[in-house]
Amino acid sequence: MKAPKISDAVIRRLPVYLRYLTYLDSLGVKTVSSQELGEKLGMNPAQIRKDLAHFGEFGCKGVGYDVPYLIEKIRQILKLDRPIPLCLVGAGHLGHALCHYTMYRQDNLRIVAVFDNDPAKIGREIGVLRIQPIEELPDTVKAKGIRIGIIAVPADAAQRVADLLVEAGIEAILNFAPVNLRVKEGVRVHHADVTLELHSLAYYLP
Amino acid sequence: MKAPKISDAVIRRLPVYLRYLTYLDSLGVKTVSSQELGEKLGMNPAQIRKDLAHFGEFGCKGVGYDVPYLIEKIRQILKLDRPIPLCLVGAGHLGHALCHYTMYRQDNLRIVAVFDNDPAKIGREIGVLRIQPIEELPDTVKAKGIRIGIIAVPADAAQRVADLLVEAGIEAILNFAPVNLRVKEGVRVHHADVTLELHSLAYYLP
Repeated sequence: MKAPKISDAVIRRLPVYLRYLTYLDSLGVKTVSSQELGEKLGMNPAQIRKDLAHFGEFGCKGVGYDVPYLIEKIRQILKLDRPIPLCLVGAGHLGHALCHYTMYRQDNLRIVAVFDNDPAKIGREIGVLRIQPIEELPDTVKAKGIRIGIIAVPADAAQRVADLLVEAGIEAILNFAPVNLRVKEGVRVHHADVTLELHSLAYYLP
Repeated sequence: MKAPKISDAVIRRLPVYLRYLTYLDSLGVKTVSSQELGEKLGMNPAQIRKDLAHFGEFGCKGVGYDVPYLIEKIRQILKLDRPIPLCLVGAGHLGHALCHYTMYRQDNLRIVAVFDNDPAKIGREIGVLRIQPIEELPDTVKAKGIRIGIIAVPADAAQRVADLLVEAGIEAILNFAPVNLRVKEGVRVHHADVTLELHSLAYYLP
């Protein structure tokens, strides 16, 4: 029997739990209740219990969740318990911000290659990475086992970059360009589109 | 009677529709069916019809939606039919990317002020904006009627910036720092957290 499909909304909340649990762990906190989690995260404790119950029995009534154990479990669920190499296409301001940002995080998601097509940028360094010409993308993706591609290029170049990434064997894309991308089935695309965030935020203005 | 609350998920999909409709409009397309929208956006047409039906009768059976009319309606729903001044705190790589990005968009959301606390950055220009010292934030927010604040500072400074923004009268925050923010009731916070996007993307890797 196939496991029931977990909704995207649940999956999007797990990293939020993980981040706060990791913070608690850094403070040496050993257990936390769904009430405390709910309060700190501004979420309904029942929702949190229900979300986590999709994946097993992690809590203990009257005691709460064991923090390090729950961290380990969520990392397993999100497949963050193994290294996931990423590449970035587009070494503009956003690309730089993304590189610096992921460099200092302590998890298994790491940008291991940066590409651009601007001769003025190629060969320059962002932290420990040298900006490579876009032509090297297919070989580098294969050589480094890169699984996720981040698109940080202008809108009119995004589809071409997506095609190139998919062609090279990329399994998932995080797209910062403000366009919808067409990719073959099986390749997951998430959009990190500032415009969409701002537009939905505007709705909630008083 | 109070209007029924529309779910956040619906509100988050409206900008996606709006973006594609605007694209169609730029091509001169006059009508579009929910089927076509669904195909292009990789969404269920029934879902699209249901989402839009929350706000009124916009479609015409057998004909579809009038593109310019639907654009106008969605802009009204999202309150994008009036200018919404934004400010940005943090003039690093991400801040630069955000400024350049919103500068070229043709909508009513516009960054009208940029703040930083780094003396090396203050006074420099990003496009038409001069980076202002953070101390000028309260007065500038009032003078320019700024309603949304964007936080693009390091994690350990984000809460202080949020407090400052809320104190100055900001009504909504888009937070790029990887921390949960505490704000008083009535201030809406959206998180644009790359880590969370990447973590939920990892789950979908084959």
